[in-house]
Amino acid sequence: MPYINIKVTDEQVTTEQKRRLIAGATSLMVEVLNKNPETTHVVIEEIPVENWGVNGKQYLGTKK
Amino acid sequence: MPYINIKVTDEQVTTEQKRRLIAGATSLMVEVLNKNPETTHVVIEEIPVENWGVNGKQYLGTKK
Amino acid sequence: MPYINIKVTDEQVTTEQKRRLIAGATSLMVEVLNKNPETTHVVIEEIPVENWGVNGKQYLGTKK
Amino acid sequence: MPYINIKVTDEQVTTEQKRRLIAGATSLMVEVLNKNPETTHVVIEEIPVENWGVNGKQYLGTKK
Amino acid sequence: MPYINIKVTDEQVTTEQKRRLIAGATSLMVEVLNKNPETTHVVIEEIPVENWGVNGKQYLGTKK
Amino acid sequence: MPYINIKVTDEQVTTEQKRRLIAGATSLMVEVLNKNPETTHVVIEEIPVENWGVNGKQYLGTKK
Repeated sequence: MPYINIKVTDEQVTTEQKRRLIAGATSLMVEVLNKNPETTHVVIEEIPVENWGVNGKQYLGTKK
Repeated sequence: MPYINIKVTDEQVTTEQKRRLIAGATSLMVEVLNKNPETTHVVIEEIPVENWGVNGKQYLGTKK
Repeated sequence: MPYINIKVTDEQVTTEQKRRLIAGATSLMVEVLNKNPETTHVVIEEIPVENWGVNGKQYLGTKK
Repeated sequence: MPYINIKVTDEQVTTEQKRRLIAGATSLMVEVLNKNPETTHVVIEEIPVENWGVNGKQYLGTKK
Repeated sequence: MPYINIKVTDEQVTTEQKRRLIAGATSLMVEVLNKNPETTHVVIEEIPVENWGVNGKQYLGTKK
Repeated sequence: MPYINIKVTDEQVTTEQKRRLIAGATSLMVEVLNKNPETTHVVIEEIPVENWGVNGKQYLGTKK
């Protein structure tokens, strides 16, 4: 039954990356908590960079 | 004072359906919890299908 | 696939009321959006009254 | 470490207003809770007006 | 109509601090976005320190 | 900058399991999206079983 919500800045996350995030987050629930993957939901939300703030300032692209 | 957040996949939810979701969720708070509808807020968020995962996979449209 | 999050003030919501909130919110998704109830999740969060503010002030119990 | 999520209706919030929301919310955490601004995150989400309901009805623009 | 959700670690936040967070977050919505304070809701959620992670590790109390 | 919120039923999740959830979710952001782990936050919320509904009913403990 877990529900995982991932919020990231909207910087061209690819379909393949989303696929890996969903698979990885679900596996984590199965491996660590022995949850049923069929009832594990993952929701990815992409936030415009100007809507994300850190250290009191608008975020301006990924620092990797 | 309740706050209800409804996340659904973004699959052409109509304005009329949103109206019914808001009316129905608010009625539920009034009937079950005796809340004041004037302070009951409902927020619907539509999530792109490729951003929603279940059973470790990206969701691909409604199975009804 | 919907996910519904209900936040209410923590004021002795009974198990029976929770049962009705879950049943009602799920029915709403089935009736309005034709969703599968088996994949509809409802999460109720009870918030201490001193942690909920409206009109700039801490909320102090239900005004019905 | 605080995380602040601000949901507002999507009514032409300007970049400058977002800048002020982020700066103000972060200052609040520093002043009231003595938090480190470097680890304070603010996420603004703009919700289409037809997706926001209050008093059981879809919201139709700001009443100021 | 804004809704502000503040998540902080559960480290003895006082009632007075909560009062100030609610008042400050509401003022911010009024001043920056000209919102009606009567419909501005603030919800504070206190998260046990062992449930908050940063840099891949459990957080262990405020570093100020 | 990602923020990951994990909601699970409150069924005696151990500190060690929480540690692994935080480490695993953070690694996923680094590996898939090349994010900086120092600004990756993970928040785990444990929901009482009677507050979690699926298929229109209150959830009654993990089916593994």
